[in-house]
Amino acid sequence: MKIGFIGTGVMGKSMAGHLQKAGHQLFLYTRTQEKAEELLNKGAVWCKTPAEVACQTEVVFTIVGEPHDVEEVYLGAEGILAGSSEGQMVIDMTTSQPSLARNIYEKAREKGVEALDAPVSGGDTGAKNGTLAIMVGGSKAAFEKALPLFETIGSNIVYQGEAGAGQHTKMSNQIAIATNMIGVCEALLYAQKAGLDLDNVLKSISTGAAGSWSLSNLAPRMIQGDFAPGFYVKHFIKDMKIAIEEAEKMGLELPGLSLAKKMYEELAARGEEESGTQALFNYWN
Amino acid sequence: MKIGFIGTGVMGKSMAGHLQKAGHQLFLYTRTQEKAEELLNKGAVWCKTPAEVACQTEVVFTIVGEPHDVEEVYLGAEGILAGSSEGQMVIDMTTSQPSLARNIYEKAREKGVEALDAPVSGGDTGAKNGTLAIMVGGSKAAFEKALPLFETIGSNIVYQGEAGAGQHTKMSNQIAIATNMIGVCEALLYAQKAGLDLDNVLKSISTGAAGSWSLSNLAPRMIQGDFAPGFYVKHFIKDMKIAIEEAEKMGLELPGLSLAKKMYEELAARGEEESGTQALFNYWN
Repeated sequence: MKIGFIGTGVMGKSMAGHLQKAGHQLFLYTRTQEKAEELLNKGAVWCKTPAEVACQTEVVFTIVGEPHDVEEVYLGAEGILAGSSEGQMVIDMTTSQPSLARNIYEKAREKGVEALDAPVSGGDTGAKNGTLAIMVGGSKAAFEKALPLFETIGSNIVYQGEAGAGQHTKMSNQIAIATNMIGVCEALLYAQKAGLDLDNVLKSISTGAAGSWSLSNLAPRMIQGDFAPGFYVKHFIKDMKIAIEEAEKMGLELPGLSLAKKMYEELAARGEEESGTQALFNYWN
Repeated sequence: MKIGFIGTGVMGKSMAGHLQKAGHQLFLYTRTQEKAEELLNKGAVWCKTPAEVACQTEVVFTIVGEPHDVEEVYLGAEGILAGSSEGQMVIDMTTSQPSLARNIYEKAREKGVEALDAPVSGGDTGAKNGTLAIMVGGSKAAFEKALPLFETIGSNIVYQGEAGAGQHTKMSNQIAIATNMIGVCEALLYAQKAGLDLDNVLKSISTGAAGSWSLSNLAPRMIQGDFAPGFYVKHFIKDMKIAIEEAEKMGLELPGLSLAKKMYEELAARGEEESGTQALFNYWN
């Protein structure tokens, strides 16, 4: 199949690679062409604009940065919808605003184009191994049509409902992570101040009711002083901002999420924007 | 071995039962004698005071309610230390104050008695199945002597250091749980308000980076409106109070834990003291 892929950053490069390996002909656009080089060397076609990608393909995937990037890539003068035609499918895998996903869905539908919002979770490792969780919003029929493609990229693929539902699910995911990160840091800090051996403490607490992915995977990095990014602080702040804006629209107050956002913003202001989310441990320094 | 057991509530009854089944002769004291009936029917001996338990046994286990109960049971006029003699071992499995554990350790040592603090995690199910996590503070030699007994009760048994270290580890455990509970509730509430199918959302988010014991085990109960106690709100508040007092002594500010305590206290004030901790979901009602 002729497939467009826009955004070949850390995540996108691996995801596009899986589609290429499955035998699809890729048409690429990305802000920095060098990032696409490996895919281009293996036969992908370079396009000068998102519209040009859309002209030549049946399905277009996107995974870019911020919501305003998504907006530009889809709705800009040289955006995907400017080049797309009836019967095409467009799939945004960026973590972005549910309201923007609905907007793109409506605008696409006017042109006879099906749009899915399908953000992912699982990080660079999940992208590399093709084991991402994919949370999908849009029409059920479009989801079923896209499923074989999703299956080359991820392993936990769930249809969540109408346009925007994929993004809402991802927000729910980020909300659960955010507040738990505070708990993981506080549990470790307490143990450290109490003079305990932190590795032994993890042995006691990480397999029971206090257990979590973050406690098992990020607490050991905190202990080792390894704050290299798996997931960037700056990206997490972006996600928390979207979640809080959406919650406000629903009239929902989320004190845990608000606290986490405030703490991460303070951390970023102190120069930790490019650190991994486990750097929250340094908030107390 | 002649073993004393004080406190045969939900947890204690199962734990004492494992010791009895392993062939030990039990000497019991508990506030409400009926709660010990099953064990008495199987040959345990009833004692009228903790001191009387101590007089007749080599090792005394305790698992009672609040720190002031622990204090009374150990240091009261008819308490364990009033009846204990050189070479004996006493093991408190109540979740209680690290400073009290150190105090008991010192007082016991003056009489030639070894004291361990060994709080547990794993709830009534863990107690029933003998799979509790046991976090132990005190002398290493005493720990090693007690290990075969611990192994009849639990499965994840870790020596954490000097007197009080077991309690500190349990506090670290409760701190990690507390803040995560807010995140689990907020993730579900957001998803609910967004009109998503909550079971589907859990399918997407509970196996990845947002995953936690609470999300897998308590979120489904929240969705079903099942707020029956596994772990009581009132007991959780007691633990959070101890943790915050200890943190303050160390000069450590824990904003996540403080928020969780405040929210749970509000919940308790609204009549949910006897609910399970997953009732935090009702905080937003």
